[in-house]
Amino acid sequence: MKVITFGEIMMRLKSPGHERLLQTGTLEASFGGAEANVAVSLANYGMEPVYITVLPDNAIGDACIRELRGLGVNTTRIKRAKGRMGLIFLEAGANQRPSKNIYDREGSCIANAGPGDIDWADEFKDADWFHITGITPAISRSAMELSLEAVKEAKKNGLTVSCDLNYRKNLWKYGVECRTVMRELVKYVDIISANESDFQDCLGIKIDADITSGAIDKEKYRELSVKAKEEFDNLKMIAITLRESYSADINGWSACLFDGNEFIESKHYEIRDIVDRVGGGDSFSSGLIYGLANFGTKKEALDFAVAASCLKHSIVGDFNRVSLDEVMKLMKGDGSGRIQR
Amino acid sequence: MKVITFGEIMMRLKSPGHERLLQTGTLEASFGGAEANVAVSLANYGMEPVYITVLPDNAIGDACIRELRGLGVNTTRIKRAKGRMGLIFLEAGANQRPSKNIYDREGSCIANAGPGDIDWADEFKDADWFHITGITPAISRSAMELSLEAVKEAKKNGLTVSCDLNYRKNLWKYGVECRTVMRELVKYVDIISANESDFQDCLGIKIDADITSGAIDKEKYRELSVKAKEEFDNLKMIAITLRESYSADINGWSACLFDGNEFIESKHYEIRDIVDRVGGGDSFSSGLIYGLANFGTKKEALDFAVAASCLKHSIVGDFNRVSLDEVMKLMKGDGSGRIQR
Amino acid sequence: MKVITFGEIMMRLKSPGHERLLQTGTLEASFGGAEANVAVSLANYGMEPVYITVLPDNAIGDACIRELRGLGVNTTRIKRAKGRMGLIFLEAGANQRPSKNIYDREGSCIANAGPGDIDWADEFKDADWFHITGITPAISRSAMELSLEAVKEAKKNGLTVSCDLNYRKNLWKYGVECRTVMRELVKYVDIISANESDFQDCLGIKIDADITSGAIDKEKYRELSVKAKEEFDNLKMIAITLRESYSADINGWSACLFDGNEFIESKHYEIRDIVDRVGGGDSFSSGLIYGLANFGTKKEALDFAVAASCLKHSIVGDFNRVSLDEVMKLMKGDGSGRIQR
Amino acid sequence: MKVITFGEIMMRLKSPGHERLLQTGTLEASFGGAEANVAVSLANYGMEPVYITVLPDNAIGDACIRELRGLGVNTTRIKRAKGRMGLIFLEAGANQRPSKNIYDREGSCIANAGPGDIDWADEFKDADWFHITGITPAISRSAMELSLEAVKEAKKNGLTVSCDLNYRKNLWKYGVECRTVMRELVKYVDIISANESDFQDCLGIKIDADITSGAIDKEKYRELSVKAKEEFDNLKMIAITLRESYSADINGWSACLFDGNEFIESKHYEIRDIVDRVGGGDSFSSGLIYGLANFGTKKEALDFAVAASCLKHSIVGDFNRVSLDEVMKLMKGDGSGRIQR
Amino acid sequence: MKVITFGEIMMRLKSPGHERLLQTGTLEASFGGAEANVAVSLANYGMEPVYITVLPDNAIGDACIRELRGLGVNTTRIKRAKGRMGLIFLEAGANQRPSKNIYDREGSCIANAGPGDIDWADEFKDADWFHITGITPAISRSAMELSLEAVKEAKKNGLTVSCDLNYRKNLWKYGVECRTVMRELVKYVDIISANESDFQDCLGIKIDADITSGAIDKEKYRELSVKAKEEFDNLKMIAITLRESYSADINGWSACLFDGNEFIESKHYEIRDIVDRVGGGDSFSSGLIYGLANFGTKKEALDFAVAASCLKHSIVGDFNRVSLDEVMKLMKGDGSGRIQR
Amino acid sequence: MKVITFGEIMMRLKSPGHERLLQTGTLEASFGGAEANVAVSLANYGMEPVYITVLPDNAIGDACIRELRGLGVNTTRIKRAKGRMGLIFLEAGANQRPSKNIYDREGSCIANAGPGDIDWADEFKDADWFHITGITPAISRSAMELSLEAVKEAKKNGLTVSCDLNYRKNLWKYGVECRTVMRELVKYVDIISANESDFQDCLGIKIDADITSGAIDKEKYRELSVKAKEEFDNLKMIAITLRESYSADINGWSACLFDGNEFIESKHYEIRDIVDRVGGGDSFSSGLIYGLANFGTKKEALDFAVAASCLKHSIVGDFNRVSLDEVMKLMKGDGSGRIQR
Repeated sequence: MKVITFGEIMMRLKSPGHERLLQTGTLEASFGGAEANVAVSLANYGMEPVYITVLPDNAIGDACIRELRGLGVNTTRIKRAKGRMGLIFLEAGANQRPSKNIYDREGSCIANAGPGDIDWADEFKDADWFHITGITPAISRSAMELSLEAVKEAKKNGLTVSCDLNYRKNLWKYGVECRTVMRELVKYVDIISANESDFQDCLGIKIDADITSGAIDKEKYRELSVKAKEEFDNLKMIAITLRESYSADINGWSACLFDGNEFIESKHYEIRDIVDRVGGGDSFSSGLIYGLANFGTKKEALDFAVAASCLKHSIVGDFNRVSLDEVMKLMKGDGSGRIQR
Repeated sequence: MKVITFGEIMMRLKSPGHERLLQTGTLEASFGGAEANVAVSLANYGMEPVYITVLPDNAIGDACIRELRGLGVNTTRIKRAKGRMGLIFLEAGANQRPSKNIYDREGSCIANAGPGDIDWADEFKDADWFHITGITPAISRSAMELSLEAVKEAKKNGLTVSCDLNYRKNLWKYGVECRTVMRELVKYVDIISANESDFQDCLGIKIDADITSGAIDKEKYRELSVKAKEEFDNLKMIAITLRESYSADINGWSACLFDGNEFIESKHYEIRDIVDRVGGGDSFSSGLIYGLANFGTKKEALDFAVAASCLKHSIVGDFNRVSLDEVMKLMKGDGSGRIQR
Repeated sequence: MKVITFGEIMMRLKSPGHERLLQTGTLEASFGGAEANVAVSLANYGMEPVYITVLPDNAIGDACIRELRGLGVNTTRIKRAKGRMGLIFLEAGANQRPSKNIYDREGSCIANAGPGDIDWADEFKDADWFHITGITPAISRSAMELSLEAVKEAKKNGLTVSCDLNYRKNLWKYGVECRTVMRELVKYVDIISANESDFQDCLGIKIDADITSGAIDKEKYRELSVKAKEEFDNLKMIAITLRESYSADINGWSACLFDGNEFIESKHYEIRDIVDRVGGGDSFSSGLIYGLANFGTKKEALDFAVAASCLKHSIVGDFNRVSLDEVMKLMKGDGSGRIQR
Repeated sequence: MKVITFGEIMMRLKSPGHERLLQTGTLEASFGGAEANVAVSLANYGMEPVYITVLPDNAIGDACIRELRGLGVNTTRIKRAKGRMGLIFLEAGANQRPSKNIYDREGSCIANAGPGDIDWADEFKDADWFHITGITPAISRSAMELSLEAVKEAKKNGLTVSCDLNYRKNLWKYGVECRTVMRELVKYVDIISANESDFQDCLGIKIDADITSGAIDKEKYRELSVKAKEEFDNLKMIAITLRESYSADINGWSACLFDGNEFIESKHYEIRDIVDRVGGGDSFSSGLIYGLANFGTKKEALDFAVAASCLKHSIVGDFNRVSLDEVMKLMKGDGSGRIQR
Repeated sequence: MKVITFGEIMMRLKSPGHERLLQTGTLEASFGGAEANVAVSLANYGMEPVYITVLPDNAIGDACIRELRGLGVNTTRIKRAKGRMGLIFLEAGANQRPSKNIYDREGSCIANAGPGDIDWADEFKDADWFHITGITPAISRSAMELSLEAVKEAKKNGLTVSCDLNYRKNLWKYGVECRTVMRELVKYVDIISANESDFQDCLGIKIDADITSGAIDKEKYRELSVKAKEEFDNLKMIAITLRESYSADINGWSACLFDGNEFIESKHYEIRDIVDRVGGGDSFSSGLIYGLANFGTKKEALDFAVAASCLKHSIVGDFNRVSLDEVMKLMKGDGSGRIQR
Repeated sequence: MKVITFGEIMMRLKSPGHERLLQTGTLEASFGGAEANVAVSLANYGMEPVYITVLPDNAIGDACIRELRGLGVNTTRIKRAKGRMGLIFLEAGANQRPSKNIYDREGSCIANAGPGDIDWADEFKDADWFHITGITPAISRSAMELSLEAVKEAKKNGLTVSCDLNYRKNLWKYGVECRTVMRELVKYVDIISANESDFQDCLGIKIDADITSGAIDKEKYRELSVKAKEEFDNLKMIAITLRESYSADINGWSACLFDGNEFIESKHYEIRDIVDRVGGGDSFSSGLIYGLANFGTKKEALDFAVAASCLKHSIVGDFNRVSLDEVMKLMKGDGSGRIQR
């Protein structure tokens, strides 16, 4: 199965350990971005995803390609251009202190790209699946137009289209409402994944659950799924991730899936020593893509996706550096953390 | 409001992560000391505290001033002298293994200072508040005399005097009893903060609470406050911090405040992944100073102080590198650790 | 009391923090191995253990001796030979992701050693105690023969022989069954320590407890002890460690001891922020050796061993870098993690 | 003497040691920029320079102010704005391989600033000296206009104006010729410093010297100085730095100064193990400002400037972290590198 | 042009900076090996070399493939097997102290491979060039047989065969003389590269030059080339590298090339601050392959090879991380190390 | 041969690479001191030197013993006491910028020791050689008295006494002239080593050589030796080290030896990339002790000492981590730095 993902990849500059940003003079540099994270996960599971983006034509762009290609992502369709790479500065929270991002992504090569810059018809030849997120249309007007162009062409070519809503309140600055854009984009989507607040922020669909409280009422999520399906009948699958944030280190993690018919609930994980939760949602999306393509039942697909994203919380960096075997082992129930020797 | 703090600042040399001291050949160098920690917090909240100490006239003293001045502390009143800077070697505990300090602070510039070395009348001109702790009188006889000189002159000049008792059993080696000194010093204090055992060690005031047990009986703390007020009627405010030490990583944290009339209890925080608890008390004291000066009620002041010091447990180093906004956010209830992006 | 330990020591190459192996280009190099770990602990408690092994005659072997000798282990009986040192690559798990070892120890100097290479009669002169584990007979046929030679000679010379079963399923590749070897070796052993599954894997003695579940039924362990004593009447002491693996970070830890008569249960520890659990069993074995030699009661010996190994979980590296005082302090009940200053 | 410097400060992200950019995942973060470098040097010599720039109103801008303020620069006149900080990625060359910069400074807060954003009349009150470089007018059209506004107002207020030409061929992208701008700007300058090629690139003044050959013909530099003075009679001082680039590690370093009358040559230094040559020219400019203000003769001022900038080549980072004493010591002839103890 | 290289790649574990091995507890891990180094260089120049080896089927083998694939090497033909990866421990010399290697490569996957394990006929389909070195036949008898099998099949398929003699005196331990093997292997080689002593050690061809003296007599090298051509008439090109070792940091570097007709001498480089000279010869071989395939004259090919390998001395690690542009720039004469900005 | 060395060992805290002290927050911690450095070198050459000092009875003293014992020094005679360890802060110079030390060694355990604290008669039983330096008598009056006590007792017991004058102008603060003390101490010395200025500073013996100029006139050193012998006829051997300081990175290094009869000159070494020159003199002294005890001629002893100390300049830290073989290899002429593989 040939999967294409498309979006922005940034250089991620993190202060070491739990230090605040620039508390000392070292930054840990890596790469990450929602759609690239999905591609890396799929490569880890043995697929050969194609990742499309626009990178600067300099040593930084080269390093990014080196990293993705090394991880097994097909990077041959990445465009190079004059310009810059977006950056994200990151510090890790602890206890009651949240992790904190500072975006420095304006004017990136991909934000400068627009309709016509990518030959979607050519890219989608022989492809089966297209994955996009709500971040790309948020970064600039031209990137939004390019995103819409992409999903329309994908549908036209018969690809399955998946979208992670991924609302980012600090983007969406170019003068068009997020909801206006996303409600249009979602019309071309088959499989949607998001958390509860994304549905409200991106699509205006809400329920009256209080996500900040510990207890989560699964019934509310069923209700939300049904509402989404009612509004967007094109959606074949609606996946919702449920994060209970007790602190920066301790989260509950689970998800549910609605296929218009059945409402499936995943196993629930307690994660008590979060190493890095960035990319949690992306590892869920990629797990779902892999799972739907490779398992007999939707329950298995969901459980795979949740196990994969549970493991992500123990991995340093945006990319979910776990193998198929490791996800399968957790999915089958072994989360005891007993040493492997 | 012009606040002056006075005391020793040391170079802190910590082994990396959870390594034991000198397990490998790297030490993390920073600066810290109770009264400097208070000054840094006040600077973080937008005040311009004056910090008074004596530093060696060499590259190490220069580096210390660079750090404090960078953080917004007024360092123009720091004296320079021949001699050395005190050091503290530190390793971080984990689980049942406690953190461990080795002091190497004898013969420091400030320990060698004595009455007359600082022109308190000049320093206190236009000042509103003077903060001192029980550490300075503990380091040497001359420093003790200088401390007493300071509080007396402060009172004479009409400043509010706050004192964190901060009992250190490994100091107090020059032949005068801690209680003798501290009971004299406290006569010039308006606002006292300490934990339960400090009251006993420094002032001889005790209750029969067992602080090593998990459960804390708030009634006992009211009792302690009342006793302290009875013995030292000059005290306008008695603040007690309550630390439940479950392990080196997991503590409960709260505080109470008695103004001679009302006994106020703070919110209680569970801190389950302590990053660095050194400076916890100092961040409470500074939070209280800021709170009393800026909020309408004592309850708010106390809640601000406890939120500030709760956050300190998530910060690397002695200084509480958090902003006013971050403390306010936690004080208002958001301790979910949800990522900021 | 002169204790001799014998076995393989490896270079341990660990990725930093929670990074996956070779995620970045740094490895933390140290040394470790079950029997060397025991020797280091005994040295920490003030004994002067003799450690016997075979090391390559190069700068790596030199570094290993430097480390052990520095820590107080008598290294004068270590043989040097052409060849290589075994390696272990290690990454630290977190949450549901287990720690992972990759052994690269084939063809090591000690694996190439065999009967006659060590003059046991000479080594055991004036010695009181010999400690071996189930790892040495697992690494090669010749090392197995050398191990059997050792325990027989030790018994002949009247030494107390202790053995930690330490089953390693990735070793035992030379064509003889583990149980065949270990059942023979155990005939010469006085004191055995192991976890529940080791008894089954090495000796074929099993009970129907489910070690992966949280709850542990102590009665089952009594039953296991009795069975072991029935099969091997030469055993004077049977110690079983009980690890409840909730996750890679959170374990319960306790042990029990059966002397053929009395079944003694230790205190139970909750360890909620595991720093490094490698060497946990070794620190138990060494604690037991020290305890039996230095305390009046078996209960104290067991409690010392459990306190020592509890602390190991908070120490970086294989070696249990804690002092006698620190173990005694925890054994006597202070596990509050209050800072020492 | 009150000196004001104005320009862009960037975050500098350098790969460790001699590694190529992103060869491994660590970057060393610091701050630097021609005019800030000048301010830091002046602060090191005991002056209290005012540095004016525009910084983003986030944690990165805060860190930059912390660093500058710590080093003794007056940062109270720095503006804060929405937006980003410019970045420079840097790798250190060696031997025949040159150091390499990648600028990522488009759209920075200061590039977005323009005429009227800074109240020059207010800033220049009581000021004596204004320093600017050819970088600021190169970054954007509005910054160019702001620069011209600055020098004109400075002259009007009777300040001495110094300018380091600092040609950067990768900037100057907004559609106006460098020479057009710089020839206008230089009309308001009293003291100019630059290397030979800057005169050609910025002002169109050239001689036929071959700067890539080892041997340097001082006579040519006299000729160049005279030409510059002929074209810009307002120039009171023309300083030229002479770098002989034998390799990335080995440079010759000297300078000359023409005051319209006398042509003065400095001492010549062989620098054979360059640590970091970035900021070499800035440390010359600041040395010249200090020297002209504090020494009796121009020869001394020049020698101070060359000694200061010679030392810069041994300092990590953009800032010339050397003291007045250290420069004086070298200026007086002690360059033997004998250990100080 | 499709180039295939074949040989062993090892994990390289280097002590930081100039530290002796295991002086502190950190090792820098990377990958390298003569033939892989050649492949990486060719990829850097835009070719798509195929690298053939046998790697362990574990996380370490995975990491190695990730690195090579990232760098643009075709890794699809790499075999995976049970077993281990060879290791090389490395410390960097300085001044009179040489760099030092400790090999730990016995029993590696590739050493265990033998005739028949690789389907050379299949690998060589459509291939143009095969590169091998004298290291592979040195590691084991079976690897020697596999090497001979390879060159014979390569010749049979009409490929150009190049070989770097690369004598390693610490290998060749399996009982066959190096010269016996290499004189046989060289019969199938078209292009040979080596230093002077390799000719003697591998082929028994010697001249009476003293390579340890500074001065190098080029006439001797012509003589050596002619001798080699006389003995092995099949050789179409004989390249000799000339390293003048003044110290661990300072080397002279040049080469010469004999095509049976013309004797060509390269430019000579002084390298005065060696960063890492490992892989110098490999970067020469790959430069020669690229040069012969892409330039009109042998002189240009030789100059490209020498410039490439000169630059290698400034690069950390085995791989010559330089671009085609960078080599061309030096080849054309710019070795001044002037900063690129 | 049993050698005893006696003096202070300090913790050495160095900023990384070429950074200035506390430029960033990391310090590299190791141990060093003139007499301990001598002991370590002798242990490296296979001797078992006894090192006597007084160390604090805490984790820092323990770490120091761990390090020395690991390196093969007999540490059983080290005293432990309450108090502190001396510190030395160090930054590495480059080019014209010298390395810089900040001592923080006042009040150390050894400075507090005095006559009677060490039972010299007991220590010197069976001993052959006693080594001391001019640093110990410089640190305090009591340490001076203890030093004199030591050399007198050593002579009485028939030991050979060697002394490295090692003048430190920042010590000698207790009110007795260096020359007064050292001229007394040297009366009990057999073998003296020092540089030219030490003779003047410690003994008042001078020649009119200019050590800061490059050229060194050997005749002057012969003259100095003869003068020293004339004043102190007890001296059996006078060794003078000759350092030509061209810069912090480039030094010439050689020595000469006068036995009252013959004046012997060593080989001369150019050291062009100094890694760490601290401990250069100590490695000379220890080389001389080893050489005189193990070679047939004084010329060989001197050449060994100079080769050993030449190599020290390439070693990180105070200790000369080189083997006997490595020194022999250089002594015999191989300083080409060719890689060992």
